Amino acid sequence: MLAEIITIGDEILIGQIVDTNSAWMAKQLNLIGVSVKQITSVSDDEQHILEALELAEKRADLVLITGGLGPTKDDITKKTLAKYFDMGFRNDAAALEMVRQIFEKYKRPLLDINIQQADVPDGCEVIVNKNGTAPCMWFEQNNTIFVSMPGVPYEMMYLMDDEILPRIKKRFKLPFIVHKTILTANIGESFLAKEIEEIEAHLPSHIKLAYLPKLGQVRLRLSAKGNHELELDREVKTYARQIISKVSRFVVTDEDIPMEKAILDLMKSKGMTLSTAESCTGGYIAHLITQHPGSSSVYWGGAVAYAYELKESILGVKESTLATFGAVSEQTVTEMAEGAVKHFKTDYAIAVSGIAGPDGGTVEKPVGTVWIAVSSKHKTVAKVFNFSNKRIQNIERSAASALAMLLNVLKETV
Amino acid sequence: MLAEIITIGDEILIGQIVDTNSAWMAKQLNLIGVSVKQITSVSDDEQHILEALELAEKRADLVLITGGLGPTKDDITKKTLAKYFDMGFRNDAAALEMVRQIFEKYKRPLLDINIQQADVPDGCEVIVNKNGTAPCMWFEQNNTIFVSMPGVPYEMMYLMDDEILPRIKKRFKLPFIVHKTILTANIGESFLAKEIEEIEAHLPSHIKLAYLPKLGQVRLRLSAKGNHELELDREVKTYARQIISKVSRFVVTDEDIPMEKAILDLMKSKGMTLSTAESCTGGYIAHLITQHPGSSSVYWGGAVAYAYELKESILGVKESTLATFGAVSEQTVTEMAEGAVKHFKTDYAIAVSGIAGPDGGTVEKPVGTVWIAVSSKHKTVAKVFNFSNKRIQNIERSAASALAMLLNVLKETV
Repeated sequence: MLAEIITIGDEILIGQIVDTNSAWMAKQLNLIGVSVKQITSVSDDEQHILEALELAEKRADLVLITGGLGPTKDDITKKTLAKYFDMGFRNDAAALEMVRQIFEKYKRPLLDINIQQADVPDGCEVIVNKNGTAPCMWFEQNNTIFVSMPGVPYEMMYLMDDEILPRIKKRFKLPFIVHKTILTANIGESFLAKEIEEIEAHLPSHIKLAYLPKLGQVRLRLSAKGNHELELDREVKTYARQIISKVSRFVVTDEDIPMEKAILDLMKSKGMTLSTAESCTGGYIAHLITQHPGSSSVYWGGAVAYAYELKESILGVKESTLATFGAVSEQTVTEMAEGAVKHFKTDYAIAVSGIAGPDGGTVEKPVGTVWIAVSSKHKTVAKVFNFSNKRIQNIERSAASALAMLLNVLKETV
Repeated sequence: MLAEIITIGDEILIGQIVDTNSAWMAKQLNLIGVSVKQITSVSDDEQHILEALELAEKRADLVLITGGLGPTKDDITKKTLAKYFDMGFRNDAAALEMVRQIFEKYKRPLLDINIQQADVPDGCEVIVNKNGTAPCMWFEQNNTIFVSMPGVPYEMMYLMDDEILPRIKKRFKLPFIVHKTILTANIGESFLAKEIEEIEAHLPSHIKLAYLPKLGQVRLRLSAKGNHELELDREVKTYARQIISKVSRFVVTDEDIPMEKAILDLMKSKGMTLSTAESCTGGYIAHLITQHPGSSSVYWGGAVAYAYELKESILGVKESTLATFGAVSEQTVTEMAEGAVKHFKTDYAIAVSGIAGPDGGTVEKPVGTVWIAVSSKHKTVAKVFNFSNKRIQNIERSAASALAMLLNVLKETV
């Protein structure tokens, strides 16, 4: 079964927002065995939306549409869908009731434009949206299903989880898609490919191998498609084992999880605790870690020590160290990491201090210079990195490198 | 001038990565007056890529393609482009030299598959990629320009900034697109629309108004297109002023910046300092703030106090408060905020403590219960929120609400 996703909204095409909805939807569809053939973002323009619907109908069995359902004039999805399916409008009682309830809950008067949100093309099936005022609409034409949802991420997510995915699973006999991911670090894509070229050459045609490089890590993904889930699972695991045994020293995890989750899992299994002392990463490492449910059993917290004063007062970095060597130095980052272990009473700590940019660089320490330290009660390792002149990238690459350093230290000691 | 973006790669269609490249590219194109008509993500499948190229050529003057240029077998973009343009291959000397230099820099042996990265379709112009081994390729056919770039974000960004955008600006006489954004908070989309419906009704046809709601904020965007930049700018500013004066009490900023940047700018202009004390947001607020260059002049840092022990030791929350009222309580969040002001010596502090989920909820304090406090030397305000049962959403909404609370406090006092 093939699906397409169409996202509607000028805000995507002028780059004001990043389309995170599509990735989330694609992931959920894949998990139930629906392949996404294409993701298309089009503007709030009637002719363009009509063309996109027509092309998608030809290619796909299921077309998921998000966006353009707000109450305001720039939102034209509903009108355009009515035109595409040649339908009139009716005001849907269930949808109107939901709008009423939402306005009652927030004690706000119901405006005409809100009542109009319950107007729907008369040939569609309405799926009530419990989290917002724009109803979800289900259409069928020439064996293709079209579902129109609001673009607000959490409204879309609830509708997908509670309504759309269960209906699709019930109605179609879907093939199985089994993925297996291996996360590697400290090896480049082409060296990895060279190492496993024999294994790759012998993969059967229904199993694909993809290389996904990002921030010094390469994720390998085996994907198998077929009708027998257990058989696919067995096959994929066999090839994954072959790959892992070939490049074991670079393998971080054989689960589809990010580096920090692999670290949390490892540390949790050993009963270890972690804290952070961040300067230039400004809380980003803490954020990566605390995104994960259950992180509190390993991660105790940390400091975002931007100002010199906080490096001293929270982490116990010596004033003389800062004065002599500066904030971005081996000495300071070492004291930050050791201070975190000592004051936060954790087994391990990560510390980062660097010049994220775009300003603040000098000839000796240009923008992108970042010192990272990992400390335990027994030892501290520190290393300097030279990244780019782009702030966000420096933050992300510093965080990825710090996590990779921690993992290496853990691997040596555990 | 119309552009389309085609991103190639199964990893997008199975939802393993979010396509952030397209939004960035779209934004840069818009700034130089190129409208993006469509963004299309297709799989690593020859037939599908060929179809996407053909459709894009019909609609667009410029087609920017990212992805599928890696050295491994799953990357087929180059081969497919050669087929589309009916070209053979040649090994490009400048591209090969760059590959050599990169391998020399990292002291790694040059493999055959790396040398092959300098193979390009023989009718294309090569633009050397200084940050990676995959060259950028420029094609022209039937008055449409096609540019193929690597999907690695920072390689693509450098190529766009340094090469592609300057070439486009030089070659085409581009219309001007002028945007003006107004960020509002504490008012729903439909109420906002009602408030400004008169103004909206009188907008000329070359000026569009869009409503972009997100996390309790609504961004209004006026966009004007034409040939006279100053005139467009004047017009857009006139309408923006009308809107701002109509809904002034809800306006956060009239710049295209996020809430935290508006707060940083306001506080910087008043010489004020800020710190954070985060529990359930786990460093996310600190990260939002420190993304912005120059944030260090306002933001001194803060604590990510996940464990009870750190709430006590870094922030000075009393053990008895935690024991009596729990971590998620008005009393604790108040002590966290006041502790941050006191210990970090800043004018203002934000504190957040809540149950992000998915576990840890109780009947009295279900998942999504979040206490937020904003404190200054003179007073502390605290408020409870009830969000959803999704962890990431709870973190994001808590951060947005905390920033909105801080802004309200600042507006009252400044």
